[in-house]
Amino acid sequence: MRFMVQMVVRLPGEWPAQRLEEIGKAENARGHELINAGKLRRLFRIVGRRANFSIWDAASLEELHENLSSLPMHPWMDITVTPLIEHPSEIEFKELYGALPALD
Amino acid sequence: MRFMVQMVVRLPGEWPAQRLEEIGKAENARGHELINAGKLRRLFRIVGRRANFSIWDAASLEELHENLSSLPMHPWMDITVTPLIEHPSEIEFKELYGALPALD
Amino acid sequence: MRFMVQMVVRLPGEWPAQRLEEIGKAENARGHELINAGKLRRLFRIVGRRANFSIWDAASLEELHENLSSLPMHPWMDITVTPLIEHPSEIEFKELYGALPALD
Amino acid sequence: MRFMVQMVVRLPGEWPAQRLEEIGKAENARGHELINAGKLRRLFRIVGRRANFSIWDAASLEELHENLSSLPMHPWMDITVTPLIEHPSEIEFKELYGALPALD
Amino acid sequence: MRFMVQMVVRLPGEWPAQRLEEIGKAENARGHELINAGKLRRLFRIVGRRANFSIWDAASLEELHENLSSLPMHPWMDITVTPLIEHPSEIEFKELYGALPALD
Amino acid sequence: MRFMVQMVVRLPGEWPAQRLEEIGKAENARGHELINAGKLRRLFRIVGRRANFSIWDAASLEELHENLSSLPMHPWMDITVTPLIEHPSEIEFKELYGALPALD
Amino acid sequence: MRFMVQMVVRLPGEWPAQRLEEIGKAENARGHELINAGKLRRLFRIVGRRANFSIWDAASLEELHENLSSLPMHPWMDITVTPLIEHPSEIEFKELYGALPALD
Amino acid sequence: MRFMVQMVVRLPGEWPAQRLEEIGKAENARGHELINAGKLRRLFRIVGRRANFSIWDAASLEELHENLSSLPMHPWMDITVTPLIEHPSEIEFKELYGALPALD
Amino acid sequence: MRFMVQMVVRLPGEWPAQRLEEIGKAENARGHELINAGKLRRLFRIVGRRANFSIWDAASLEELHENLSSLPMHPWMDITVTPLIEHPSEIEFKELYGALPALD
Amino acid sequence: MRFMVQMVVRLPGEWPAQRLEEIGKAENARGHELINAGKLRRLFRIVGRRANFSIWDAASLEELHENLSSLPMHPWMDITVTPLIEHPSEIEFKELYGALPALD
Repeated sequence: MRFMVQMVVRLPGEWPAQRLEEIGKAENARGHELINAGKLRRLFRIVGRRANFSIWDAASLEELHENLSSLPMHPWMDITVTPLIEHPSEIEFKELYGALPALD
Repeated sequence: MRFMVQMVVRLPGEWPAQRLEEIGKAENARGHELINAGKLRRLFRIVGRRANFSIWDAASLEELHENLSSLPMHPWMDITVTPLIEHPSEIEFKELYGALPALD
Repeated sequence: MRFMVQMVVRLPGEWPAQRLEEIGKAENARGHELINAGKLRRLFRIVGRRANFSIWDAASLEELHENLSSLPMHPWMDITVTPLIEHPSEIEFKELYGALPALD
Repeated sequence: MRFMVQMVVRLPGEWPAQRLEEIGKAENARGHELINAGKLRRLFRIVGRRANFSIWDAASLEELHENLSSLPMHPWMDITVTPLIEHPSEIEFKELYGALPALD
Repeated sequence: MRFMVQMVVRLPGEWPAQRLEEIGKAENARGHELINAGKLRRLFRIVGRRANFSIWDAASLEELHENLSSLPMHPWMDITVTPLIEHPSEIEFKELYGALPALD
Repeated sequence: MRFMVQMVVRLPGEWPAQRLEEIGKAENARGHELINAGKLRRLFRIVGRRANFSIWDAASLEELHENLSSLPMHPWMDITVTPLIEHPSEIEFKELYGALPALD
Repeated sequence: MRFMVQMVVRLPGEWPAQRLEEIGKAENARGHELINAGKLRRLFRIVGRRANFSIWDAASLEELHENLSSLPMHPWMDITVTPLIEHPSEIEFKELYGALPALD
Repeated sequence: MRFMVQMVVRLPGEWPAQRLEEIGKAENARGHELINAGKLRRLFRIVGRRANFSIWDAASLEELHENLSSLPMHPWMDITVTPLIEHPSEIEFKELYGALPALD
Repeated sequence: MRFMVQMVVRLPGEWPAQRLEEIGKAENARGHELINAGKLRRLFRIVGRRANFSIWDAASLEELHENLSSLPMHPWMDITVTPLIEHPSEIEFKELYGALPALD
Repeated sequence: MRFMVQMVVRLPGEWPAQRLEEIGKAENARGHELINAGKLRRLFRIVGRRANFSIWDAASLEELHENLSSLPMHPWMDITVTPLIEHPSEIEFKELYGALPALD
């Protein structure tokens, strides 16, 4: 199953650079584990903002929740989860033309 | 350049099945051209709604606008375009582990 | 998998009683099929409004989408799908006390 | 009487793990009392968020208010209470087919 | 049980005076029945708007829904139902001073 | 003149029980004075929330403002004041049937 | 008593020039009566929009409602009424310096 | 040029009475200077709230900005500036009947 | 004086191509007159939408209103006018470095 | 490529004048670098508010993000980025009349 997850991160403006760096490192490390596990499929930074769109796979809703909650910045995030399915137009495309070009 | 585009389609409830089918076919046909051209990269249906999240590539903003406007359902869409960049965590991942798994 | 689905139905005020009755009958008939199939688990009318909260089970997101889209009033609905999981407090309850009382 | 209650919990991001754990335990304990009393009927965690949808029974509005206010996290919650009734389609279902399948 | 109900009426601007008068008469007639039945307790027009705040009593949520839905203008209304209880300050007042002055 | 006033009270979650009790007592005491003065006519608690709907009479807008501002919790309130008049349907009712039943 | 009234006028884009002119004339004629009666005190057009801010005096809320409802464009307006009082700073000004300069 | 300015003041609830009094005095003193300068033309308190509607004249947008920014409470204000012009109906009124009655 | 004007154009989806073309031509022709008059300074299309950001100069608010209202698509536009001034940082820049690079 | 960027700056009201001055100086200095680099093309202060509209050029979305994030006030900003293209009416203008007048 696939999900679009929008995360808006609201860290206090007063945090010192060191704290930002530490939590950033921890966030990335956990993200890499989730990519390697095939759960966090893509992570896009929204231009100009501390926010992102991300694409997640999950074998269950429980797994998705656990993975999102495991992010170190989770307590400072506003999260919106949108369940997705293949669009009929993509399905028809594959029947007509084969797989879509790989998404780098 | 990459963009997240959310499209909410508001077709009049009164349209007969035939009109819906015709515009649906035209929409898919144009979508397939845009996929084949490498512009429409992924198209996800939002569960339960006549709406989608889609990922677009574009060599220029002009090209993106022309492509979005060429969709037959465009006059009935509410469109939100969000410019995206690679997330620093993805960049770091690639340095550490190589390419992300392909997104089917 | 379980989902909360809020449906707000916006039928044109001008529709004659007969059309309302016909679409209401068709809506109920389809609803009953979905209940019998174990997909539509509960359907609550929101007091005072043509709107409801409903609880759905689905083996896949595709199935949920297909079921929601099959409702005759779907073209006049604003639909919000919220993925749910068991709450940790319910899980702990079951460990301590057994199953929750049946929900009539 | 039945009510849908949506609770969004906004705990300060800075709280130490111990305080989170303590209030979580107290919240669960009170929730279990309310389940055992037949008042809190179902409690669903919204995927990815510190928020839930819950179904409550109450013999009176006073009782419902007292129960919601008794939750230890209540001062940090945004609460929306929606009064529900049986949906006409469910009523008709029961006449035609008998009780709905039990909701685990 | 008591409820605050806000009703915003959105009648098409094009309706001729006669149709407005007819539906207004029917709306008032039904309202009077509901006042005489002790269900619609107070009805306040919001200054400058085709909208009102109203106070309803109901022996059950089903009864409230039936009464609200029976209003001839219901298909053109946006309705918000808010469940109310006696405020602790009013309760304390009655213990200290007796009944509140009648509300004309 | 009559007004509907919705008050949403946002007290800091961290306040100790004693401070909550003290400001609650002061709020009630001031409320009782305003009831006895015939200004605060009804005060309804919104179920599940630290919020209320209240009905106020005032001989002038200045008086209403002074009374609302005199509440000890006023600095933590979001207040919405809606001017009301008798609804034409209530006026007609009184001509046809006499006074409405008293509102306890 | 004084009120700020914001009126947003949503006339159908399709109306022919003649209909716009007729309703505009009727609207102005009624407005002039209300100015001459000392009720509509000032009327400001919001730049770029078919909308206005206006200042109204009224001896009662009933009078204000009747006056606003008497405007020919009222069925196509979204109206917001805000009750106003003299600001303490203006009152203090008058004590210190006398009347404010006339508002042309 | 004329502008409607809505100011919503959000002072921390915890401020002691003395600090509120000091900033209130400073705010009024600056307001009086701006009235005497013919810039702040009218200042209305919104009933029940720490908020106001005010009418400003300015020879330039720069002047308006400087004046608004000079208010001691400006850092705690949410400000909305709406440019205004004479309404065509007022212009026509003046041609037909002369000046509007002075606004006290 | 300078203003940012955001225009969202909501043309009915059903309009035939010819009508769209005609109003588009008229809109452009009027726009060109306003550019040549030095009033409409820049006009940017928002990518993917029938909407734009535009920069306007005006000697008076009346002139700005007249110019905006003269656009053939004005009855189908939602318009937001934001008054602008030179930013202090730009002023300081000019003192330090001279004029900003021309904006093509 | 061109972008409209709206920045709303929310600095804590309690900051002392010195801290405001320091961050203001740093913000301007960075802004000047970005103007000199041809990236920040125009910066307009929104009248009455600590907010601005700004026009940015960027060779890539990455560059735009880096530039916006480099602003010292960025952690206290709410930022909205809107991708822009030349409006067809401007393009047609240039064909007919040549370049638009320079924007001072």
